[in-house]
Amino acid sequence: MDLFTSFERLSLNQITTEKLTLPEAVDACARAEVPWIALWRHKVEQSGLAASKRIIKDAGLQVSSLCRGGMFPAATTAGRQARLDDNRRAVDEAAELGAEVLVLVCGPAPDRDIAGARKMVEEGIEQLVPYAEASGIRLGIEPLHPMYAAERSVINTLAQANDIAERFRQEQVGVVVDVFHVWWDPDLYTQISRAAGRILGFHVSDWIVPTPDLLMGRGMMGDGVIGIRRIRHAVEAAGYAGLIEVEIFNKAIWELSGDDALSLVKARYIEHV
Amino acid sequence: MDLFTSFERLSLNQITTEKLTLPEAVDACARAEVPWIALWRHKVEQSGLAASKRIIKDAGLQVSSLCRGGMFPAATTAGRQARLDDNRRAVDEAAELGAEVLVLVCGPAPDRDIAGARKMVEEGIEQLVPYAEASGIRLGIEPLHPMYAAERSVINTLAQANDIAERFRQEQVGVVVDVFHVWWDPDLYTQISRAAGRILGFHVSDWIVPTPDLLMGRGMMGDGVIGIRRIRHAVEAAGYAGLIEVEIFNKAIWELSGDDALSLVKARYIEHV
Repeated sequence: MDLFTSFERLSLNQITTEKLTLPEAVDACARAEVPWIALWRHKVEQSGLAASKRIIKDAGLQVSSLCRGGMFPAATTAGRQARLDDNRRAVDEAAELGAEVLVLVCGPAPDRDIAGARKMVEEGIEQLVPYAEASGIRLGIEPLHPMYAAERSVINTLAQANDIAERFRQEQVGVVVDVFHVWWDPDLYTQISRAAGRILGFHVSDWIVPTPDLLMGRGMMGDGVIGIRRIRHAVEAAGYAGLIEVEIFNKAIWELSGDDALSLVKARYIEHV
Repeated sequence: MDLFTSFERLSLNQITTEKLTLPEAVDACARAEVPWIALWRHKVEQSGLAASKRIIKDAGLQVSSLCRGGMFPAATTAGRQARLDDNRRAVDEAAELGAEVLVLVCGPAPDRDIAGARKMVEEGIEQLVPYAEASGIRLGIEPLHPMYAAERSVINTLAQANDIAERFRQEQVGVVVDVFHVWWDPDLYTQISRAAGRILGFHVSDWIVPTPDLLMGRGMMGDGVIGIRRIRHAVEAAGYAGLIEVEIFNKAIWELSGDDALSLVKARYIEHV
């Protein structure tokens, strides 16, 4: 099927409504009949883990993913151990919330050695896998746009994410395809095909022109230059039939009420995804 | 040789001293005994082509490159022809100025079809080559950071630039390696080796953290996270012994006098390149 006519695969990533608390975002989803939500740990912490779980369940929502684990590289062994401990807590939270996947934003280098940091990411994931496996939580490696290489993640292409994921069982470690991060990549469609069976998430937004800011430059689907539908078709051709998260860092969208934001998300989802 | 002890390969890219006119930048280079300068067409136009040529010659400077040709994609045939005509004028100017190379910033897509735009870039270069060859001007394809894919260039990796350059004689079409654009690339060192014999320029600056802006976020060498010397060694291992241009878009550096900017450039060149 080409055009969506229903919202059964739509998930609101909580950062799109950054000013809402978790209960407010859950309410807005329930009113808008958006069946899935993707959670951020700082929002869950604010409302409490047990309370968040209950609120989501009472509203009849399901959790597509928890954002985020990762941030593996650190300058010292103790630092890397602390990151691993935090990742285990993230796995616990994902399991408690019934999230389908824990999204990994892998972290920047602690120094000028980006190659060394990439090795630390591989080691960190390797150490985390048995714990995640025991908890029934899948790990989704999300490559971040190269402009975030210095501050957020040294995993910047789908090829890198695939390279790491392929070292593990495909039921356990996969990749998350976010159009904002990967749309520019000349190797995109090859790497999406390669990821068949391992795609654990698909995130949509748009790249707006002129781009106002590195972090806050994302736009609502249809407001930018990304061929979103072409990418959606490619992930579906690779067998992905899972959830589609709308994840937008954008101050103007953050100023909307939850109801207005979700009504815009739904309209653009039908038109542009 | 590892550390530089002289400045014979140092070239000031004019954009680093954006507030200076061409004669002022030439004067500053001459006073600082920086032997090379890289020119921008709008600065040459401001001072006049013949006058620019004379001023540079009188100061005993040489021109490492002219920035820029490119911007090939356009929505219509007439639009693409106009871009090609402008590129021929850029070749003429490069020849008149005695520039070693014309740098190609290849241009963004006119729509949401980035793959189509990449084909237009290939066709544009193919059409430009005979004219450049007749004028004795080498073309240097400069991959731009993926964050510029929507506004400046759809050629975003050294692999793409190599793919195009390899269709032509290596004396005619090559690549320009700018550390700011390529430092994040997991395939960087493979592609630098692959470019052996075709590297027509090496540009240095740094990636500062936090990154304040997409365009103005470049820093002076040493102020950021790029392993500049490692990349310099790699281009030299690939046979490059040419000029090293310092090209920095940075408002604080633009506020410095030409003398202060060049003295900082020279100090950081010795320390960090």
